[in-house]
Amino acid sequence: LIDESGGAVKSCVDDLAVFGGNPLFAGPKPIGQLDAPDVGDYLATLKEAYDARHLTNDGPILLKLEQKLRRLHGTRHCIALANAGLGLTMLMQVFAKGRRGEVIMPAFSYRGLPHFCQWAGQTPRFCDVDRRTHFLDVRAVEAAVSAVTTSILAVCNFNNPGDIEGVCAVGRRHGVPVFLDSVYAAGATHGGRMLGSFAHAEVFSLHATKLLNGFEGGYITTDDDDLDRLLRWQRNFALPGSRPPVAGAESVLGLNAKLNEFHAALATLSVDRLDGIIARNRARYEAYCRGLARIPALSLIPYAEGERANYQMAVVEIRAGWPLSRDETVALLRAEGAAISAYYSPPLHRSEHCPAGVATPALPVAEELARNFVQLPVGELTTVADVDAICGLLAFVAENGAGAAKRYAGRGQP
Amino acid sequence: LIDESGGAVKSCVDDLAVFGGNPLFAGPKPIGQLDAPDVGDYLATLKEAYDARHLTNDGPILLKLEQKLRRLHGTRHCIALANAGLGLTMLMQVFAKGRRGEVIMPAFSYRGLPHFCQWAGQTPRFCDVDRRTHFLDVRAVEAAVSAVTTSILAVCNFNNPGDIEGVCAVGRRHGVPVFLDSVYAAGATHGGRMLGSFAHAEVFSLHATKLLNGFEGGYITTDDDDLDRLLRWQRNFALPGSRPPVAGAESVLGLNAKLNEFHAALATLSVDRLDGIIARNRARYEAYCRGLARIPALSLIPYAEGERANYQMAVVEIRAGWPLSRDETVALLRAEGAAISAYYSPPLHRSEHCPAGVATPALPVAEELARNFVQLPVGELTTVADVDAICGLLAFVAENGAGAAKRYAGRGQP
Repeated sequence: LIDESGGAVKSCVDDLAVFGGNPLFAGPKPIGQLDAPDVGDYLATLKEAYDARHLTNDGPILLKLEQKLRRLHGTRHCIALANAGLGLTMLMQVFAKGRRGEVIMPAFSYRGLPHFCQWAGQTPRFCDVDRRTHFLDVRAVEAAVSAVTTSILAVCNFNNPGDIEGVCAVGRRHGVPVFLDSVYAAGATHGGRMLGSFAHAEVFSLHATKLLNGFEGGYITTDDDDLDRLLRWQRNFALPGSRPPVAGAESVLGLNAKLNEFHAALATLSVDRLDGIIARNRARYEAYCRGLARIPALSLIPYAEGERANYQMAVVEIRAGWPLSRDETVALLRAEGAAISAYYSPPLHRSEHCPAGVATPALPVAEELARNFVQLPVGELTTVADVDAICGLLAFVAENGAGAAKRYAGRGQP
Repeated sequence: LIDESGGAVKSCVDDLAVFGGNPLFAGPKPIGQLDAPDVGDYLATLKEAYDARHLTNDGPILLKLEQKLRRLHGTRHCIALANAGLGLTMLMQVFAKGRRGEVIMPAFSYRGLPHFCQWAGQTPRFCDVDRRTHFLDVRAVEAAVSAVTTSILAVCNFNNPGDIEGVCAVGRRHGVPVFLDSVYAAGATHGGRMLGSFAHAEVFSLHATKLLNGFEGGYITTDDDDLDRLLRWQRNFALPGSRPPVAGAESVLGLNAKLNEFHAALATLSVDRLDGIIARNRARYEAYCRGLARIPALSLIPYAEGERANYQMAVVEIRAGWPLSRDETVALLRAEGAAISAYYSPPLHRSEHCPAGVATPALPVAEELARNFVQLPVGELTTVADVDAICGLLAFVAENGAGAAKRYAGRGQP
């Protein structure tokens, strides 16, 4: 069934797994990076930590990891955390300085953001995004910012922090801190400068599905000495007695957000492997470029030219002429063994995570984007040959779409 | 300097490390359990998980751990979590059902509780405790409960859940859920029944310093099917699309509170070692009983008779006749290499973690208890010989206290 030359992989519509054919892949092809350093190296590092019984609270491996990440991002500070979601939540809480207010965020983004915002005692204020960069629309931010805005959360998609300079200028004018969710931007540059030191702070992930793998984990980069002290204190319960002499400390809520040596050990090895990880991602991404070039109705989201990119994601936009709906396309690919999903759908202001009482007007760009994207398999468990096979499958759908659409219509929506 | 027979370990006040003498211990003697299963066993389990690349999201080791803990506690459900603090926070958030209200909690307890409560959008309402059990005073709870009470957090100290039946009865009368912070009560019984299934839910810790060691981690036990479903959903971002058909789901805030296989693997080994851990704790505790019996001004907090206890903590109350203040005593022991601290001091309503605007009247029992307790070294890094040496040191202080107090007075308070 699989044509290893990358040509057509199905000969008729009945061959599609969604209609009962054999799936293209025996095991699931994921959308996460899943980098795996040598287990021997990892277990050796771990044994050292275990024997030393210094497994958390600024252990030696954690300090080394933070140093490596400071160097990678070119920042003065790096605060390693138990996960990136806690990092976003902590920043919203710190920036609010004890007030209940609003955090401005893009409506086209990760579905967890509205809840993180509410944990921090804040209400999300959703803004539309730029059609090309998917980044916060600066005019929308300018229109949304008000006396109750406690911070502005911008999200860096496809390594592209859009008009971050424009958003930061709005923040400065109104005295509101701006921070970046950069969990998909590790290892990438903007204007030739490594992501990490834009805005007041940036948040990265060390989850197994992200570029750098600590299994779980995350970190915040910042050049702000006071913010660094507040966050280090906050991640360790904001213990009374160790309160840093920094303005705003009195309203910081502490929690256990520490990253321990087990995660730091793996992440450290992963940082050392960064160039190789990106090179492998690039090979897969270029295979998608080649394979999708012959399908005009699918448009692969590009990375900025002239910048260093991490090539981690492969997301296509469905355009006029594609025979299936987005959800039909997702169901078709999942049936073939591609463990994929729609991308940032629904938009946050239309999602179940939108808090009751938050009335958001139509956000046309976010709503359009949220209808039209499909993630494709990437990461270490997806080979270039797999990519070729997926492209062959999509080419088959493009050519035999009428038949597939008819079959879908005959059995109801997926 | 150290008298291995357990007799006097210092011959004059100048021998005390706090006044320049050599310390009793070369390395720090901690107050945490620090159980360490065989590293070979651990790394073997880990390699399996690593090779399977199923490291989080209900991995096989996690499911096994949850099963073992259900059996241990005799509960229908166990929800493993990234840490116990998140577990307490999650319960306060779920029980509040979207309201901003008050959580009743003891003023004599762990200093992190007021912040956890605020993360959950709630304000702490501090109550006084019972002089003997250190557990919430039922009359104080009855007086504090009101229309804005969203839950009652009781804390189980020294394996003793005090009058939990009385507190639950108050909760039932007012329709308010009651839950237990049982992080120090793993493996102990109350009325012959294992802690874990009292109240609506109980929270336990898997931190390295606690009885069962997952390095980091925690878990919630409950017999409530609906609560189990809500918490499992909540710990994985409360993802839309997987919302359980349970009342109250619409107000649950999701987060990443998952425990991954690395922590679950260690915790599983630690559960298997429980009987041995408790036996070693008991030997140390009994050595403290023997050694402190000759010092009437120090009273070791007892475990309930006729119950199974975990003997994890050794805390003394300073009584009339002890020559030094509590803080002088702590400083003296720390100088000797005992990595100890005061116990639950200051009380929460007098601490920096008490939110601005919370006015709490005098809580005489909590205030008295918070002045008079000192934790002593316990856990796997403290031998019975160490315990004998500490008791010898304390006996020396009891006999030579006048001189020590004079030296303290001469140089100001520690």
